[in-house]
Amino acid sequence: MNAEIIAVGSELLTPARVDTNSLVITERLNEIGIALQGKSVAGDDPRMLKAIAAQALARADLLILTGGLGPTDDDVTRNVVADLLDLPLEFHAEVFAGIEKRFAARGLRAPGINKRQAMVPRDAVILENKYGTAPGLWIEREGKVVILLPGPPREMRPMLEAVIRDRLGKVAGASRMSRRILRVTGRTESHVEEAVQPLYARWLAARLPIAATILASPGQIELHLTVSGTDIKELQAALDAAADETRAVLGLDLFSADGEEMPQVVGALLRARGLRIAVAESCTGGLVMSRLTDMPGSSEYVERGVVVYSNQSKTDLLGVPEPLLDAHGAVSEPVAEAMASGMARTAGTALALGITGIAGPSGGTPAKPVGTVAIAAAWVRGGKTDTRVRMFNFFGGRELVKFQASQAALDMIRRWMLEAG
Amino acid sequence: MNAEIIAVGSELLTPARVDTNSLVITERLNEIGIALQGKSVAGDDPRMLKAIAAQALARADLLILTGGLGPTDDDVTRNVVADLLDLPLEFHAEVFAGIEKRFAARGLRAPGINKRQAMVPRDAVILENKYGTAPGLWIEREGKVVILLPGPPREMRPMLEAVIRDRLGKVAGASRMSRRILRVTGRTESHVEEAVQPLYARWLAARLPIAATILASPGQIELHLTVSGTDIKELQAALDAAADETRAVLGLDLFSADGEEMPQVVGALLRARGLRIAVAESCTGGLVMSRLTDMPGSSEYVERGVVVYSNQSKTDLLGVPEPLLDAHGAVSEPVAEAMASGMARTAGTALALGITGIAGPSGGTPAKPVGTVAIAAAWVRGGKTDTRVRMFNFFGGRELVKFQASQAALDMIRRWMLEAG
Repeated sequence: MNAEIIAVGSELLTPARVDTNSLVITERLNEIGIALQGKSVAGDDPRMLKAIAAQALARADLLILTGGLGPTDDDVTRNVVADLLDLPLEFHAEVFAGIEKRFAARGLRAPGINKRQAMVPRDAVILENKYGTAPGLWIEREGKVVILLPGPPREMRPMLEAVIRDRLGKVAGASRMSRRILRVTGRTESHVEEAVQPLYARWLAARLPIAATILASPGQIELHLTVSGTDIKELQAALDAAADETRAVLGLDLFSADGEEMPQVVGALLRARGLRIAVAESCTGGLVMSRLTDMPGSSEYVERGVVVYSNQSKTDLLGVPEPLLDAHGAVSEPVAEAMASGMARTAGTALALGITGIAGPSGGTPAKPVGTVAIAAAWVRGGKTDTRVRMFNFFGGRELVKFQASQAALDMIRRWMLEAG
Repeated sequence: MNAEIIAVGSELLTPARVDTNSLVITERLNEIGIALQGKSVAGDDPRMLKAIAAQALARADLLILTGGLGPTDDDVTRNVVADLLDLPLEFHAEVFAGIEKRFAARGLRAPGINKRQAMVPRDAVILENKYGTAPGLWIEREGKVVILLPGPPREMRPMLEAVIRDRLGKVAGASRMSRRILRVTGRTESHVEEAVQPLYARWLAARLPIAATILASPGQIELHLTVSGTDIKELQAALDAAADETRAVLGLDLFSADGEEMPQVVGALLRARGLRIAVAESCTGGLVMSRLTDMPGSSEYVERGVVVYSNQSKTDLLGVPEPLLDAHGAVSEPVAEAMASGMARTAGTALALGITGIAGPSGGTPAKPVGTVAIAAAWVRGGKTDTRVRMFNFFGGRELVKFQASQAALDMIRRWMLEAG
């Protein structure tokens, strides 16, 4: 079964927006053995959308459209698909009742324009939208399937899950694809490639051949493994074995063997060891804490954080001595160490981080250019405080420097916990 | 002149990669008055690429393809386009000499497969690639233009600049396009639409018609305005006027009239008033501070922040009285107010925020479900501390609740500063 996806919306033809829905959809389609053969973006012009959709439908067995199901004049997908498939649109009172109920729950009356969202092409199956007013649609026509999903990701994703579980999974064949993302830090792309290269040939020659792609991004390198077959357990076992082989080659630099992000990995280690952490941030401005607390349940192991942008606040909140700041400058290893140990002391946690650097674009000097970041960790054990500290030189603009620094700080704690056993 | 873009490469049909070249190309095309009417992604299958390219070329005046110009079997773009336009491929010795020179500079001999990159469709203009072996191509055919650019962004971008400067800018004519993004908060999409609807018709009927698109995302609604013409100053003036009309209708709910994000708007207001801010966060976990400090120069007006996840830290760092926490619970208006005023007092800033809520997925109760967030602002003026506080009910998962809460907190400070004049 071959699929195409069309993302609808004039905003997706501007430089300001990129279609990411198709990535989520592709992932789920691949899992049930459906390959994507092409994808497109169309604006809100009905004539153009109809042309693009007609051609995609001529080529594909399955066409998924996202977006353009809202209540406004710009939302043309429903009408264009009905027109293309030559199906009359019919008003469904129970769909509109559902929309009215959503508004009523917020003490509002449904505006008249929302009636458009209750128009349904004849014989289409209505896909319930639990998170918005736009229902989705499933249409079978001459052996082909057309699915209309809403554009907002938080509405699209649950509907996609439901339609795959209830309908598409049954139409698709027995073939399955499994994918796994491994994540590496502390090495360049070339060095990861060199280390892993010998595994590639072996994986491709296996009974269940595994394809690998390497992808570099700031702060981490990813290895994407894919394998196809009919028995999902076999596929998972093959990927488990490949992940183990990769770990044997990369050691602690492999921080994630099954798609986990760094804050998730660090959170799991903290929880398993019953350790609590506090974070003192300067240049990262709260990003480390924000990433740690993106994890559900993080209140178990995250005690507190401070963002000490000014020297005054470093002294007030962490007891960093003024003479230390004067002698070494705010961006220095001794200050990072004093921040980390001051944070552990004031918060009463076992672990603490101290991060101070120059995120840019201004503030750099020849000796300490933009991207210079000092990161320290403190660990209080048996009444004694150990610290580790390192200077980094990150590349890119302000947000990239912040991200790389947050990644390196979390990684420092991760390695330390793993080395301590 | 209407354009379409095709990004070529099977990796762009996986969940791991998204085509971003088209965003850069769109931006530059729009500036010279060329609108994008559609874009697609095709894999390395020549038959499918030919079908997609044929249809795009039938619809558009300008077709730009990126990727698939490399030396391997997977790189099919050159051959497919020559086939589609019925142009014979001819070997260009001077192109291959250039490729040999690139290899020689690295002490290598050009492999035979690179000869493919020296095959040029008859009458095509060769676009020099300063950063790689794949030359680009410019082909004019029956009043239409086809441009082939390499896929790697660092090769594509300089070639794009050169072809716009030397060729496309001259073909494109005198038309220019300007774009503006307006941002709104505190209203639903339907209510923004209703309020702005009467303006749409007037804008479209103007001498320089302005097209508007409305886009909802959590925490904000965007209005994208575009206008075309020949005099860039006139276009800017038309957009200024439209932004003013929108402000007249939406009042303070319009928080950005020229693309600025909320932290930028709040930062500019703080800077203009010479006010400094400190932020006490619980459920947002540092996100408000991280967003504020994403802005270059934010150290001028951001003093410090604390992330007080535990009750202990609320008492330690902000002096929130334990009896208050016991009486009202951590997620309550009195505690948010005590956090904000305690933050202002300990940091010595004029302004402070206090945010406490339930980000989920656990921790909700029937009385205070997930998404319940109390937000308070404190303003110290003439020795007196005023506070504002409000309870919110945000939707969605943990990260969405965090984002909406951060947006509402910044918005509370923004409105207060504007109301105070």
